[in-house]
Amino acid sequence: MSRTCLAVILAAGDSTRMKSSMSKVLHPVAGRPMIAHVMAAVQAADIEDVALVVGRDAENVTKAASIDGLSVTSFLQTERLGTGHAVLSAKEAIARGYDEILVAYGDVPLITPETLTSARKALGEGNDVVVIGFHTERPTGYGRLLVENGQLIAIREEKDASDEERKITWCNSGLMVINGAKALELLSHIGNANAKGEYYLTDVVEIVRSKGGRAVAVDASEAELSGCNNRAELAAIEKLWQERRRHDIMLSGVSMIAPETVFLSHDTVIGQDVLIEPNVVFGPGVTVESGAVIHSFSHLEGAHVAKGATVGPYARLRPGAHLGEGSKVGNFCEVKKAEIGAGAKVNHLSYIGDAFVGADTNIGAGTITCNYDGVNKHETRIGANAFIGSNSALVAPVTIGDGALIASGSVITEDVPDDALAFGRARQEMKPDRAKAIRERNLAIKAMKKSKP
Amino acid sequence: MSRTCLAVILAAGDSTRMKSSMSKVLHPVAGRPMIAHVMAAVQAADIEDVALVVGRDAENVTKAASIDGLSVTSFLQTERLGTGHAVLSAKEAIARGYDEILVAYGDVPLITPETLTSARKALGEGNDVVVIGFHTERPTGYGRLLVENGQLIAIREEKDASDEERKITWCNSGLMVINGAKALELLSHIGNANAKGEYYLTDVVEIVRSKGGRAVAVDASEAELSGCNNRAELAAIEKLWQERRRHDIMLSGVSMIAPETVFLSHDTVIGQDVLIEPNVVFGPGVTVESGAVIHSFSHLEGAHVAKGATVGPYARLRPGAHLGEGSKVGNFCEVKKAEIGAGAKVNHLSYIGDAFVGADTNIGAGTITCNYDGVNKHETRIGANAFIGSNSALVAPVTIGDGALIASGSVITEDVPDDALAFGRARQEMKPDRAKAIRERNLAIKAMKKSKP
Amino acid sequence: MSRTCLAVILAAGDSTRMKSSMSKVLHPVAGRPMIAHVMAAVQAADIEDVALVVGRDAENVTKAASIDGLSVTSFLQTERLGTGHAVLSAKEAIARGYDEILVAYGDVPLITPETLTSARKALGEGNDVVVIGFHTERPTGYGRLLVENGQLIAIREEKDASDEERKITWCNSGLMVINGAKALELLSHIGNANAKGEYYLTDVVEIVRSKGGRAVAVDASEAELSGCNNRAELAAIEKLWQERRRHDIMLSGVSMIAPETVFLSHDTVIGQDVLIEPNVVFGPGVTVESGAVIHSFSHLEGAHVAKGATVGPYARLRPGAHLGEGSKVGNFCEVKKAEIGAGAKVNHLSYIGDAFVGADTNIGAGTITCNYDGVNKHETRIGANAFIGSNSALVAPVTIGDGALIASGSVITEDVPDDALAFGRARQEMKPDRAKAIRERNLAIKAMKKSKP
Repeated sequence: MSRTCLAVILAAGDSTRMKSSMSKVLHPVAGRPMIAHVMAAVQAADIEDVALVVGRDAENVTKAASIDGLSVTSFLQTERLGTGHAVLSAKEAIARGYDEILVAYGDVPLITPETLTSARKALGEGNDVVVIGFHTERPTGYGRLLVENGQLIAIREEKDASDEERKITWCNSGLMVINGAKALELLSHIGNANAKGEYYLTDVVEIVRSKGGRAVAVDASEAELSGCNNRAELAAIEKLWQERRRHDIMLSGVSMIAPETVFLSHDTVIGQDVLIEPNVVFGPGVTVESGAVIHSFSHLEGAHVAKGATVGPYARLRPGAHLGEGSKVGNFCEVKKAEIGAGAKVNHLSYIGDAFVGADTNIGAGTITCNYDGVNKHETRIGANAFIGSNSALVAPVTIGDGALIASGSVITEDVPDDALAFGRARQEMKPDRAKAIRERNLAIKAMKKSKP
Repeated sequence: MSRTCLAVILAAGDSTRMKSSMSKVLHPVAGRPMIAHVMAAVQAADIEDVALVVGRDAENVTKAASIDGLSVTSFLQTERLGTGHAVLSAKEAIARGYDEILVAYGDVPLITPETLTSARKALGEGNDVVVIGFHTERPTGYGRLLVENGQLIAIREEKDASDEERKITWCNSGLMVINGAKALELLSHIGNANAKGEYYLTDVVEIVRSKGGRAVAVDASEAELSGCNNRAELAAIEKLWQERRRHDIMLSGVSMIAPETVFLSHDTVIGQDVLIEPNVVFGPGVTVESGAVIHSFSHLEGAHVAKGATVGPYARLRPGAHLGEGSKVGNFCEVKKAEIGAGAKVNHLSYIGDAFVGADTNIGAGTITCNYDGVNKHETRIGANAFIGSNSALVAPVTIGDGALIASGSVITEDVPDDALAFGRARQEMKPDRAKAIRERNLAIKAMKKSKP
Repeated sequence: MSRTCLAVILAAGDSTRMKSSMSKVLHPVAGRPMIAHVMAAVQAADIEDVALVVGRDAENVTKAASIDGLSVTSFLQTERLGTGHAVLSAKEAIARGYDEILVAYGDVPLITPETLTSARKALGEGNDVVVIGFHTERPTGYGRLLVENGQLIAIREEKDASDEERKITWCNSGLMVINGAKALELLSHIGNANAKGEYYLTDVVEIVRSKGGRAVAVDASEAELSGCNNRAELAAIEKLWQERRRHDIMLSGVSMIAPETVFLSHDTVIGQDVLIEPNVVFGPGVTVESGAVIHSFSHLEGAHVAKGATVGPYARLRPGAHLGEGSKVGNFCEVKKAEIGAGAKVNHLSYIGDAFVGADTNIGAGTITCNYDGVNKHETRIGANAFIGSNSALVAPVTIGDGALIASGSVITEDVPDDALAFGRARQEMKPDRAKAIRERNLAIKAMKKSKP
């Protein structure tokens, strides 16, 4: 039977250096709150129960942390007296009795399930405390991991370290797993007899050893353990996340000409042999099937792009855009809550919203579905093999039949039957030489304006 | 009483490696000429008088250097005989009598007021020459700073340096402050008995010491002292500038998902809790108030974005665009010299120029203010709570009242009263089965074309 | 008389790690297949004959490799038994009798003609084998070049290397030049008595020495010798290519504010004093003349931009777009197969396709040339000094005369004579207070919808 584990996630920070109107852990990375990233990693490490220690924005933080498959209980930390004190805010949950207590942080969102699992595994091998450490070229400021004969002796804070100890480049991330049976006792021994008068979780290492217990450290990458204290660090974390995901996606068979200019969301799914040109932004909820091409300067969110479809350049797909196989949405086109049939084309300067476009239909340049009357939204339905002439306005609700043809520049307010031709535009009139006269008049006006004081 | 200082700014270079039709110092960094950056730093270091040594493009360089709060006199350097000679082009200004003479360069635009101030301060502490140096991992090619007991002994050029001296990584930037009372005498002792036959400003260090004076060096970052000799270096300087400013802006409470894709201008002002998505370009003259969101692929110049407004994606705000609180300008929209009222929406594919849009008005997709008659520009005024149907053309000058409604696809040439409905479009007509016939005819034409030899 | 050389290009790899439906060497870098880059370098190194060793996608690879000025013969490698075996697939070509045999790779596309020439030169100096090497900080995995007294003794594979040899940072790229008279004999001596049972080309070094011949190595940069085994490496190669080309272009007098956001194609030509703003993509076939400005978010392909023209922001120039001197194509405009006359302006939200626009003509915002009837494409011809009012649709085939004026919102289906005014739009009508009534009705509908269960 597998071992039970409670994750205690500290998410009560004041985040003053974020200079933000909301809690730090609500700031998004890859389109979802940092705290949700941590929760997803916890869940993927086969942990089911979470004690969430919250402070500022407690309600929103709890909501953002509540992902499917996790049982989350929130505990309000009313005073800020250090990490040891923060963990004890969740004393009630810890006391339920778990084999393991994992302590992680809402502002360390890149932590991977693999690292959490390796730490849990190390605990299961007869240790009472497992600290997650990282190697760094710039250890200054971090607590150093003092290891002897494979055992973690202590975590030495920068200010207390000897010159020799300061040369150590293996550092403490703050994350750890503690023997659940001993956790409350160990935590209760943490004191605050230090300069800041705070209770430091790191003290459990020396406490457990003084009681004859065993502590070890496991290793993870520095990137994975990046914390977030201001918006520059937030951007750095986003960059690390993006680099990791782009790399994985490229290895799976997706071409990116300039991966550093492609921005993915946490749930972006891209099929094999898709080509993504420079400067593409994926908001949440996008799936792209194999063989599709996403041209430069495209922006997709909540959209589905089927096999071999072509998007952009300068295409904006908004939530509910579904592009059929081999269809095309081109430059300066916006598609929202609309199905574009297989082989259909929306190539230029169009707005297609609340609409259904049939297979192989061609939407001319400058076509607009007038879906909004200022109060309500209405649907436009266009059949297959239809042809919508350029610069047409389709005033919804309206239905255009299969094989219908709309003349350029028409305003269509009534349904058009299959194979019918519809037009709604004035006859052209001309006034010979009138342009010359108008131009001369306009130039005279301009001259008059200039001559005024 | 504070010490007087003259800044001698050398800006006479030929800039041949720039391969440019204009002087190097006129090339912009962050949207303003390099020389203006130097002047701004000089002014911020509490210096009021500048002697500008110019050569090529003298008039334009002087103009670009003339920023508010500085008194600038230009001196034409007719021959190019080295930096020592260049500074003496401004002999007349130096002779006016200043406590300090600062020498800086028009093509070293990232210099900070803090560094200039620290150099001035060092001079005030009993030194006669203060050189600004920088530490670098790649010292090759730079003059090395030889320091003994805190005193700067000499600046040793690469070619004259011993093997031991070449290992020195503290280098000369060329910038220095000189005791104003001794400056002319020191400068007059610079000789040209060297391989190139030029007068090197750096010689003043050994000259002042030979006369029993004191020289020291102060430190600045290598980045800050980057010089510009070709367009690759210009791009490198731009990048350093952008990195510095983005970092500052993030620390002040602005979120950038991908700061490396956001380009700021020298005068960009962004409020707290603003979110800037990837790929945004700020031209000069933009202010964004707190809580606004600037979506991807937006381009702003000379625009004001009020609290909580939303811009983009793909919005172009041109000079004179003023977005009211909570207003929205969306994809493929251009706004120029126009006020968009609070809560108003210009969401799709519109051109709004020389216009006033009232609060809470909705501008439909594809709306165009026809502001230009080929000669003159005219105004469009739209009231509050109005609704402009999609694909409408508003032919200025024209006024549309509060609460008015323009039917989709209309061309509006006459004023519309408050709460009136206006339309200007033809009635829809239909020809059953005509589409089929047209398609068949077109296919026949295509077939004919193909069968031709 | 110059020495003859056969280039044997290995391009038969399975490319499984590319996870691609096509051969690795067909994947593009800078807009053309990797294999074509190699061929271009070979040709520029004054080599005329190529033996192309192909496997997967043989036909397409041969086609992509067939560039002007090269005589290419393809050889199918049916079994994959190592590089030595692969080269011998071209035995027939080698046997023709060349002074030199160059071996290069279809997936090492950044190789320069200069490096190939330097290797050929070294062979001409009395050597029988010349290996192209590179220095690297991360030699792990590469074969090390063992050199004594200037002679290349052997290429030592990682697994066979002593600790001392592993410290060597000069590594084998795989590229080499072999004495043509001895090549077949040397190659025939390569055995497969190794762990993998493969024939390694690198063995020729020891073979030639055992026969009293001479081998040396020449140096090239690590970047230039980057190979491509997956799409992340493909992206890395693209990046190196872009960096190299951007740098060259900047040094030639082109300004790029953010070169890392400008993407060039293999054949992009940019004149002096052109300014390229951030985020510009050049597809193949673009030339830009001096003094032009390419604003941000522009996308050019197969287009010509004449002196002093202005493009963008957000301009898309497609194949056949020719912009005349001082002309302008602005935001959200698409130009395809169209000539824009000198000084003409297409500033906003327009589609100009299959068209001719005369000098100094002004195309209003939202203008669309309706060039497609669903089956055939037709031409629009607009004269000089004409003015096309905003939101007009020009239904091709149609001709608009010099100095003609099209009223805003018109649909033009018939030719317009010089200096004539044409309009095709309905007269504006108004219904007082009707807007209010409509709004109230719409609100009532909304309320009804909401109240439904």
